Amino acid sequence: MSNERLIYLALGGAGEIGMNCYVYGYGRPGKERLIVVDLGVAFPDMETSPGVDLILPDISWLVERRDRIEAVFITHAHEDHIGAVAHTYDQLRAPIYARPFTANIAQRKMEEQGHPEDAVQVVSPWPQQLTAGPFSVGFLPISHSIPESSAMVIDSPDGRVIHSGDFKLDETPLVGEPFDAELWAEVSKPGVKALICDSTNVFSQHAGRSEASVGPEITKLVEQAKGMVVATTFASNVARVKTLAEAGERAGRSIVLMGRAMKRMVEAAVESGVLSDFPRIVQPEDAKDIPRENLMLLVTGSQGERRAASAQLSRGKYQGVEMKEGDLFLFSSKTIPGNEKGVIRIINAFSEQGVDVVDDSTGLYHVSGHANRPDLERLTGIVKPQVVIPMHGEHRHLREHVKLAERNGMTGVLAVNGMMVDLSGNQPTIAEYIETGRTYLDGTVQIGALDGVVRDRIRMALNGHVVVTVILDDEDEPLGEPWCELMGLPETGSSRASLADVLEADLGQWLARAGAKTLRDDDKLHEGLKRTVRQTALDEIGRKPEVTVVVSRLS
Amino acid sequence: MSNERLIYLALGGAGEIGMNCYVYGYGRPGKERLIVVDLGVAFPDMETSPGVDLILPDISWLVERRDRIEAVFITHAHEDHIGAVAHTYDQLRAPIYARPFTANIAQRKMEEQGHPEDAVQVVSPWPQQLTAGPFSVGFLPISHSIPESSAMVIDSPDGRVIHSGDFKLDETPLVGEPFDAELWAEVSKPGVKALICDSTNVFSQHAGRSEASVGPEITKLVEQAKGMVVATTFASNVARVKTLAEAGERAGRSIVLMGRAMKRMVEAAVESGVLSDFPRIVQPEDAKDIPRENLMLLVTGSQGERRAASAQLSRGKYQGVEMKEGDLFLFSSKTIPGNEKGVIRIINAFSEQGVDVVDDSTGLYHVSGHANRPDLERLTGIVKPQVVIPMHGEHRHLREHVKLAERNGMTGVLAVNGMMVDLSGNQPTIAEYIETGRTYLDGTVQIGALDGVVRDRIRMALNGHVVVTVILDDEDEPLGEPWCELMGLPETGSSRASLADVLEADLGQWLARAGAKTLRDDDKLHEGLKRTVRQTALDEIGRKPEVTVVVSRLS
Repeated sequence: MSNERLIYLALGGAGEIGMNCYVYGYGRPGKERLIVVDLGVAFPDMETSPGVDLILPDISWLVERRDRIEAVFITHAHEDHIGAVAHTYDQLRAPIYARPFTANIAQRKMEEQGHPEDAVQVVSPWPQQLTAGPFSVGFLPISHSIPESSAMVIDSPDGRVIHSGDFKLDETPLVGEPFDAELWAEVSKPGVKALICDSTNVFSQHAGRSEASVGPEITKLVEQAKGMVVATTFASNVARVKTLAEAGERAGRSIVLMGRAMKRMVEAAVESGVLSDFPRIVQPEDAKDIPRENLMLLVTGSQGERRAASAQLSRGKYQGVEMKEGDLFLFSSKTIPGNEKGVIRIINAFSEQGVDVVDDSTGLYHVSGHANRPDLERLTGIVKPQVVIPMHGEHRHLREHVKLAERNGMTGVLAVNGMMVDLSGNQPTIAEYIETGRTYLDGTVQIGALDGVVRDRIRMALNGHVVVTVILDDEDEPLGEPWCELMGLPETGSSRASLADVLEADLGQWLARAGAKTLRDDDKLHEGLKRTVRQTALDEIGRKPEVTVVVSRLS
Repeated sequence: MSNERLIYLALGGAGEIGMNCYVYGYGRPGKERLIVVDLGVAFPDMETSPGVDLILPDISWLVERRDRIEAVFITHAHEDHIGAVAHTYDQLRAPIYARPFTANIAQRKMEEQGHPEDAVQVVSPWPQQLTAGPFSVGFLPISHSIPESSAMVIDSPDGRVIHSGDFKLDETPLVGEPFDAELWAEVSKPGVKALICDSTNVFSQHAGRSEASVGPEITKLVEQAKGMVVATTFASNVARVKTLAEAGERAGRSIVLMGRAMKRMVEAAVESGVLSDFPRIVQPEDAKDIPRENLMLLVTGSQGERRAASAQLSRGKYQGVEMKEGDLFLFSSKTIPGNEKGVIRIINAFSEQGVDVVDDSTGLYHVSGHANRPDLERLTGIVKPQVVIPMHGEHRHLREHVKLAERNGMTGVLAVNGMMVDLSGNQPTIAEYIETGRTYLDGTVQIGALDGVVRDRIRMALNGHVVVTVILDDEDEPLGEPWCELMGLPETGSSRASLADVLEADLGQWLARAGAKTLRDDDKLHEGLKRTVRQTALDEIGRKPEVTVVVSRLS
């Protein structure tokens, strides 16, 4: 038996949907040469990560082993797979490989962060294979809701592993390569040790529908529309953007792209050659000269993002364009769980403007980019892996996917972030548990999710903040009265007097009674003042605020 | 033509789902005698109202006209209809009328807030009518997802108006009165001027299903379960709680109720006589002596609430009970938009415990309590009102409901919160626009939603908080260095030094350069120090924090 082993480790994406980051290694334990598949982000929310700009996987484990990393491979250009590439480049400094469209997006990100664009290298799809240490890696085309999505065919001395990336089985995806069952069968022929597989839609019981199925419905809808038509979808769904634009063109409408991401994605798709014959585009500033019934806007903001084009249009004029009664707004998208309130806010704002909103509830104007349960079964039927390791899913998805694999006679391994799987033997085993987590990009700084910074923000948001200032003279006697500044707290409480006044009076009393020993001891002083504020506030307003005490000693 | 008029005014619930509060008036303009239908709450969220306990309608308009209020009528005991009764009692002091179950819940709320329980008076359903000034008001039974839900039949010298309350058309609701089409036809016979109507499910295209339809499916599920079964639903859905309990009993399981609301609702239902022959209940402390395959827990927390029983069970032991691999958890409920993340968090936690979770995605284990589109049409077909005024809906629901009414030959009026409708003439008109809004119950204090308190909390959560302390001596010269306290901010920024140190250095420099005029002027000092912090922070960490400046003058 060999001393070397083949390992799989998720640092993000297994046990959550978002911030995908997977590592494969081959070599002696602790000496494996490593490759990284995807470096994605997740998005913050007010409940768990207020003020945070982006959530990155904690890559400390990789950074400590930087000299062992051969390469980073990016399966496709969705933010949850590519978003951390530029933010982690300084720490990893490994070459990044991607196909043209994905590389185009990655290079834009590198440029934005002031990194060399040529750190991203453009590769061709299978049968090309790249050598990365002990690995030979190929990009095997697979259909998804973005062009050029690819599975990774990872060959090691221990055999072939396929990392599916995000996928659906679409034989008519309109833009990008159709799913090619024959090619997949051929690649799988030598035997596949493990399929590391997208699990997002494992609970969806019916086979997925093709991107091509929405075109006729969208065309019908746009043809029947009387006023201006505005449609939103994920900008990266280039096929959908094209379908929408063509539906507009067919109905004699001029196409306007609005929102930075929308323009950037179409640009990247044209530059990289995945998109040709896109309808002619009119600039927003020229739209006002065109009758509204001859206009179709394609806008960002399908998830209700406050600053995106759709939200801005729902609040009034955006880039000189305004929605009016009788216009139509189409969500050619689904709402990701957690974004419902933002989307509903926009729908209601449009309703107030008299705009008719059509969403995905009929199922006619959107299809998912992920493989449903029968599609997962079809793919494993073609690949015939010995082992299925579900990824790209919350725990419930991974667990269900393991059950599905086992029901179909394969070995399923439930490995969440941090569980290193040894794939060398006949049966996969959990070799190690690695500490994983989240890193917050906060403004321009990266902070650990558990550093306490965000916890303090949440506390201030829930409880308000009281700042107490006390000055002590050179004999440790209070100089004047303690002073309170309140933020995020009601002005008055049960006694109907100013809360600040009541707090200051109680603090003054406490200070007056405090002995010399307490006054000399910063800790005791802080603790006593803090306790007084919290007790008084509880009596007055029924809650205990966060308290910061500033003691200034003139000694 | 009469000098008197009949008015309708929503103070909450029209243009939103939640905090229902409707006013009807009759009399000379500005002198109308008033009745209030429902006093409900809405629930806060981290995004818009962090730290807030409950959201109440702003009832200032009513409080200013307190002497003209004849009575408050509560249609049913859901929080969005009854939740503000006790919190507004001090300000309104009007008698409150409700049917026995609803009154029982209202009385508990009054007691909790230290108000007299007998302010809530128990009434009988139609044909009893209560006189309230110029009005004669009856409680007309209608089915909903809570017992004793009632429409209000409001007779005035200007004719009969029906306020639907929340409803569905269920002829087999299991607990509470079935929908009685004949009774409704009879009540409507004299002619109905206006139907003020629930709009929640106007977008649901198929006729609603009966509460009775879920029993057989739940029974089948529970019978097949191997381990312990835990089910959650809205505690107020007494029929569902009973169905669940009976399914458990039939499968030879002992029933345990967990969570305060669950026990309170069953208690209220028994006390008020709407619930009889409920299966025998076992106390949580006795559950540990019963084999888990013979247990069924009915628990609170169908919406993922962090402190409810379901969330606690997902995190570990609760009241001595723990979930284990092979147990079943059933959501006999739908997730209200906005609560998805909390519910998903629980499902994943159960998945980690090896618990199988069944939710409503199949449609088998839950039915809605609201009338769908065909049901709305059926009811207007029976009532034949001249006018339909949609309520209990967001703007999109109201707008769609108006369209539906007009398509069916009635006059539809889109009246959101604050639009007073004059129903006297042949055609309803908008008589006035009243300022409406939200009041936050924050701890024990009521604050206006626009008072700035919550805005400050959100700002601290998004931006962090810096407190700057400066002491000036009696000649307005800085005494020592300025001092910074940081909360919710990274410790270090781009210069890799402590952020507090960098801020203090820059503040010290600014102070040293500040002229005597600035040092004497509190406003200038505040502004300069604040600007310095924000600029330095922007350079260091890429964001501008909230800043509080405390200047202490020893003069």
